[in-house]
Amino acid sequence: MSSDSQIKLVFLGTGGSYPSPQRNVSSTALKINGDVLLFDCGEGTQRQLMYSSLSFMAVNKIFITHLHGDHFLGLPGLLMSMNMNDREEPVEVYGPQNTAKVLKDIITKGYFRPAFPVQITELNPGATLDFDSYKVKTIKAAHNVPTISYSFKEKDRKGRFDREKALELGVPEGPLFSKLHRRESVEVDDKIITPEKIVGPPRRGKKVVYTGDTKPSLDIIEEARGADVIIHEGTLDPSLSSAALEHGHSSVDMAARVAKKAGVRKLFIDHISPRYKDTEKLEKKARDIFENSEIPKDLSEYLI
Amino acid sequence: MSSDSQIKLVFLGTGGSYPSPQRNVSSTALKINGDVLLFDCGEGTQRQLMYSSLSFMAVNKIFITHLHGDHFLGLPGLLMSMNMNDREEPVEVYGPQNTAKVLKDIITKGYFRPAFPVQITELNPGATLDFDSYKVKTIKAAHNVPTISYSFKEKDRKGRFDREKALELGVPEGPLFSKLHRRESVEVDDKIITPEKIVGPPRRGKKVVYTGDTKPSLDIIEEARGADVIIHEGTLDPSLSSAALEHGHSSVDMAARVAKKAGVRKLFIDHISPRYKDTEKLEKKARDIFENSEIPKDLSEYLI
Repeated sequence: MSSDSQIKLVFLGTGGSYPSPQRNVSSTALKINGDVLLFDCGEGTQRQLMYSSLSFMAVNKIFITHLHGDHFLGLPGLLMSMNMNDREEPVEVYGPQNTAKVLKDIITKGYFRPAFPVQITELNPGATLDFDSYKVKTIKAAHNVPTISYSFKEKDRKGRFDREKALELGVPEGPLFSKLHRRESVEVDDKIITPEKIVGPPRRGKKVVYTGDTKPSLDIIEEARGADVIIHEGTLDPSLSSAALEHGHSSVDMAARVAKKAGVRKLFIDHISPRYKDTEKLEKKARDIFENSEIPKDLSEYLI
Repeated sequence: MSSDSQIKLVFLGTGGSYPSPQRNVSSTALKINGDVLLFDCGEGTQRQLMYSSLSFMAVNKIFITHLHGDHFLGLPGLLMSMNMNDREEPVEVYGPQNTAKVLKDIITKGYFRPAFPVQITELNPGATLDFDSYKVKTIKAAHNVPTISYSFKEKDRKGRFDREKALELGVPEGPLFSKLHRRESVEVDDKIITPEKIVGPPRRGKKVVYTGDTKPSLDIIEEARGADVIIHEGTLDPSLSSAALEHGHSSVDMAARVAKKAGVRKLFIDHISPRYKDTEKLEKKARDIFENSEIPKDLSEYLI
């Protein structure tokens, strides 16, 4: 797989509710080609970006799950810093239904008005955004305020094209290359050349689900089926699962069960309560249920 | 001097305009007895407090200089975290004229309403707040939006009372102690005992001026006369002083000249532009003008 098609996740803030010295509040970045998508943008996200391998100026799409402060209060500062660095490219901000007014309001507080376009769009659960090389679908989350989870799906791509092989078989560079890449046979010097020899199997697009705050949800399990990665909140340890549910949250074991039921490849658990300094035991509880569970540290990265 | 009367400054954010990996945006804490005062509260201040020797829960007064984002966007997150930690004690928030609406609005964004009292007060330049053991006065700053600087002045205190000496001279513990402490003579066994032997000289209250964003200002120099500490912004280096003035800021040499003219004991320069990774040269430029200049690092402390 060529490196330009790799998707990079950067866990900018893996803490829940309020920050701790170990973990900042919610934000995860997803980099695909030239795009940097942020899922949630808690207070301090711009500085986390500065500590990371990503540039805060590269962020062009921000997906907010809901309007609890630890998920969106980093938005105005990030946009202001972009502005002070002469940004001209637009930023797209997405949030659940009935949030555009608040989001617009908070990014124009005090004397600040961004000089670049900031487009704010409300999304209902089930909506699908179709971008160049990927789609983003929203899922109704089960939190105590209107919240949407996001499902990122890279579009399937054509198989790898073996250029050397094509030339070797006498295919001249040009339109016939494209035809073969589209899996059509071509004729060269009265010889039929079929794509099987030259074009690899279609490459399945990667899928990443980011839940934000939620109780375990069938809608999320359904949408996450076969995902490469699910980033599911797990605020509390299993002994506090009732308290978690009561506040619209999950415990780490619940996150693991969601991952298991959905049959995903990898589970990252975030929104860890600041009460936990050491998360080794929490991680073990999740792994007992779903082996490929991980509680990422802030600023850690994962390539898909 | 007894340790309980020491004033502690904690530089939480010494960077200007937007954060850098080295410096967070504006906030300085002043601790006196049980009170923790914040001057400005940029994004991420609550987390800086968590890294510091102070508790974010101990903050009870917040003085905002003006409504540029790097000076007030940390307010809602800090209050939310206090709320999630079951705070009941009130927090007083102060800002310049015509800011109460914005400040009130930003701390109730999304679904958050603090369950403890948050009292927001607008202050005109020249106003004085009289607290138990100190006063805070506002000064008109010279920035490009309405901005007030703050002058903190500890009240003068009675001289140190030499308890051992008093007992040695035959003064019984009780009302006569208080009388002596008030510098009145007392009579014990027909002997007149004067306070000079027992009570030290009155102790001058400490004075700290925090400017926020400003060009050099005569009003600030006037108010800062003889201060123990002035925390003056110095966004840029001397070669960029015109640019600094144009945006309502000071260069580090300007800050040093203000300190020199006001005859303060110590100058701390903050609001350093993120363009400077190494501030040694900047500090030297200031010291060439006013020897006792310092560019504090984030989280450094100073006892007065």
